[in-house]
Amino acid sequence: MEKEKNNFSKDNFGDMPPEEFRKYGHQLIDWIADYFKNIESYPVLSKINPGEIKSSLPQTPPINGEPMNEILKDIDRKILPGITHWNHPNFMAYFNSTSSGPGILAELLSTAFNANGMLWKTSPSASELEEVVLNWFRQMLGLSENFWGIIYDTASVSSMHAIAAAREQISEYQIRQKGLAGRKEIKRLKIYTSEQAHSSIEKGAITLGIGIEGIQKIPVDKEFRMIPSLLAKAISEDKKNGWMPFCVAATVGTTSTTSVDPVNEIAYICKKENLWLHVDAAHAGVAAMIPEMRYILNGIENADSMVVNPHKWMFTPVDLSILFTRKPKILKQAFSLVPEYLKTSEDNAVTNYMDYGIQLGRRFRSLKLWFIIRYFGTEGLANRIKEHLRLGKNFAEWIDHNNNFERMAPVPFSTICFRAHPKNINDEIQLNELNEQLMNEVNSTGKIFLTHTKLNGKFVLRLVISGLRTEEKHVLLAQEILQNKLLEILS
Amino acid sequence: MEKEKNNFSKDNFGDMPPEEFRKYGHQLIDWIADYFKNIESYPVLSKINPGEIKSSLPQTPPINGEPMNEILKDIDRKILPGITHWNHPNFMAYFNSTSSGPGILAELLSTAFNANGMLWKTSPSASELEEVVLNWFRQMLGLSENFWGIIYDTASVSSMHAIAAAREQISEYQIRQKGLAGRKEIKRLKIYTSEQAHSSIEKGAITLGIGIEGIQKIPVDKEFRMIPSLLAKAISEDKKNGWMPFCVAATVGTTSTTSVDPVNEIAYICKKENLWLHVDAAHAGVAAMIPEMRYILNGIENADSMVVNPHKWMFTPVDLSILFTRKPKILKQAFSLVPEYLKTSEDNAVTNYMDYGIQLGRRFRSLKLWFIIRYFGTEGLANRIKEHLRLGKNFAEWIDHNNNFERMAPVPFSTICFRAHPKNINDEIQLNELNEQLMNEVNSTGKIFLTHTKLNGKFVLRLVISGLRTEEKHVLLAQEILQNKLLEILS
Repeated sequence: MEKEKNNFSKDNFGDMPPEEFRKYGHQLIDWIADYFKNIESYPVLSKINPGEIKSSLPQTPPINGEPMNEILKDIDRKILPGITHWNHPNFMAYFNSTSSGPGILAELLSTAFNANGMLWKTSPSASELEEVVLNWFRQMLGLSENFWGIIYDTASVSSMHAIAAAREQISEYQIRQKGLAGRKEIKRLKIYTSEQAHSSIEKGAITLGIGIEGIQKIPVDKEFRMIPSLLAKAISEDKKNGWMPFCVAATVGTTSTTSVDPVNEIAYICKKENLWLHVDAAHAGVAAMIPEMRYILNGIENADSMVVNPHKWMFTPVDLSILFTRKPKILKQAFSLVPEYLKTSEDNAVTNYMDYGIQLGRRFRSLKLWFIIRYFGTEGLANRIKEHLRLGKNFAEWIDHNNNFERMAPVPFSTICFRAHPKNINDEIQLNELNEQLMNEVNSTGKIFLTHTKLNGKFVLRLVISGLRTEEKHVLLAQEILQNKLLEILS
Repeated sequence: MEKEKNNFSKDNFGDMPPEEFRKYGHQLIDWIADYFKNIESYPVLSKINPGEIKSSLPQTPPINGEPMNEILKDIDRKILPGITHWNHPNFMAYFNSTSSGPGILAELLSTAFNANGMLWKTSPSASELEEVVLNWFRQMLGLSENFWGIIYDTASVSSMHAIAAAREQISEYQIRQKGLAGRKEIKRLKIYTSEQAHSSIEKGAITLGIGIEGIQKIPVDKEFRMIPSLLAKAISEDKKNGWMPFCVAATVGTTSTTSVDPVNEIAYICKKENLWLHVDAAHAGVAAMIPEMRYILNGIENADSMVVNPHKWMFTPVDLSILFTRKPKILKQAFSLVPEYLKTSEDNAVTNYMDYGIQLGRRFRSLKLWFIIRYFGTEGLANRIKEHLRLGKNFAEWIDHNNNFERMAPVPFSTICFRAHPKNINDEIQLNELNEQLMNEVNSTGKIFLTHTKLNGKFVLRLVISGLRTEEKHVLLAQEILQNKLLEILS
């Protein structure tokens, strides 16, 4: 204790001494190992009220340093009650992102190196390992060598970059040079996506200056897939009305129902119309690792870009999103800007990833992917995803055979959209209220966390099976809680 | 070994078992403690050649999982030779970012939780701790309560968001709705920044659809500071010529020379012209923690936003950039987009940070800041930065008193711009070549890493003192190497 205090004295300017780091590092590793051992003892969804954490903490920073011991104690006292446990096997909300042992160890190492991979030179290992593991991952998904990859932080940022490249592709508009409003004679740009697309497509287009009016949402069929003929019609009408179509964003695994847009047919239209086709496969894309699921990417070789997030269904701690594109040169044209202080003598021989994006600083993220692919192996990863698909089918069957519930969408992966629908209730408003109440009561047990969406105005529950620690028993527990809570409400 | 292998079998679908995590976690913590203990034994700048790492790794992913033991061994064998050591006390290139013990431990914990702070509900601790520590940090910099903060990944992204808010502020243009080309009668937008501003301002504006022609670079004075009268003149001329000025980005601590733009005078112009003033203080802003340095933010209360990066000069592992703004409502107007599946019952009572940015997924970054501020204390942090300033002044004095070198810019912080200029050489081309050679030879010793810039066409060396482990002896070593290498070259 004496010795540690010394570190806070004026005379000692450095970091935490290595021996102190060793001590508390071991302590924290043990804490984390125990946390994972006991993960099921925590409520999945935090039970805290708004403002509780905030009011438990000092409103001014400490002038003098505090012992690490005290800081670590506050994890249990202050932080843990406000954690919603994404690692919990019964976290079945949104699209889950679970961390894994090898992923955590890799991130620990990456944080220690603190290498910034903006330039090849600023850590050759970061740039070259990114090339190698993205090449591995490309093969795992069955993509051809025509696709080149880059790691960004999130799917939102990946998709924004794809749309920016699409914008750059209209070379006669010279948007990088002149901006979107730079030439009076140009037409307004339009991007197409389905009604079921993720909000990130819209946010990306807004950010890029396209505007909400430049985003056309194409209706979906009964299975929530974009209707290609309506896409073709919208493009042709827009062209007649003076718009300039430039991009289509299709989705493989939409957020509400994981529906799969017909990429092949959409790609045909894009080719004909000379539009950039971006495919948002952020959640479901990893399923293409399984041969019998590879069909979800049918047509991908005619797409220009695709986003897939190992930090969703591949046990990689956030954040790690990958953009694959067949046109890295256009992406680079859109974003490269090299000031004098970042020029290096190797510039022509190497990949400087900063040239391909808005972010200059880049964490050494490829380490995570490298550890995870090597530790689990491609077969181990595929088997885990396969098991999720099996569990998803089981749950869907349970819904289908249960008189009190009904399924609300097909289940191409392991996300099930359903709702309670007892035989005696047929008023849609009443059903919406019932299902919202059911969701809240199920979540308040702390034993499971699921979320909702709306489909054709109907309040629909979503149950997602994609957690690394989720087993059959957890799915059965979900069924039991749903059934019991519904009966409680109805009685 | 037997037991571990079991984890890769088909029957075991879960994560690395907690006991295995514990074992390799301890091993890796020890590795990292030793790494920091021996940090000075590594060459600062990696000596590897382009392609060496890549060719040392398999070109296909492993089908079967590999033991963690083997993976960790490859850190020494494959990765380490390609690391440029940002943690090395003689890393004096770019703006350094050094990690620290408490920062690494916090990131380890954050990675284990893997909490996504997109919504308050998805981990209340992540959202509320962000509010608390940014409030602390605001006080540390002497900013008023009018400033509200948010954590992004990088300064590039922070500044892009600030410029997007500036664009949104021109409410009559309805850019979110109509896009930048949406109304024929509108004028083209123009943003102003100095010739010495960081490339991220330009990249942000390009991304947002402003275009290179919409970026006006204002000349600087002899001390590389934006000249306010020329800014006023440019704005007035542009208005006459049909442009719509909307934003000014001033810099506190430019990348080449750490010059400080006169924010106060610039703010006066912005107020008069109703322009959004963004201040890029990514590197140097933290120096405002020291009372005698607070002057660098004079006028900040009239600015609309400011970016400052704890991951640069505050010992926080990448990535953690903070945007402070007096107008969070406008930022939210620009970016908020809440699909049904992300609506929660608490939406009106809490801060959902996803509403304020392009990124939906958000790592639990505030933990890092919390650990670091608590462990070092505000005084400990300020003392460390003060010591860097002292060392910087010493180095500048050494240059000033050395006949073979000359200083090329003022030194408001601890970044020194200088060049070799022996009395007998006066040809500028020859001097440029000499200095480039000197830099390369100094860096190739592996004992120090510094980079260059160009000022008025002159090749200038930059030496940055901002590493947590950098002491007086490391600066003296830099002097010795520079002096000796120069004499070697000259003889």
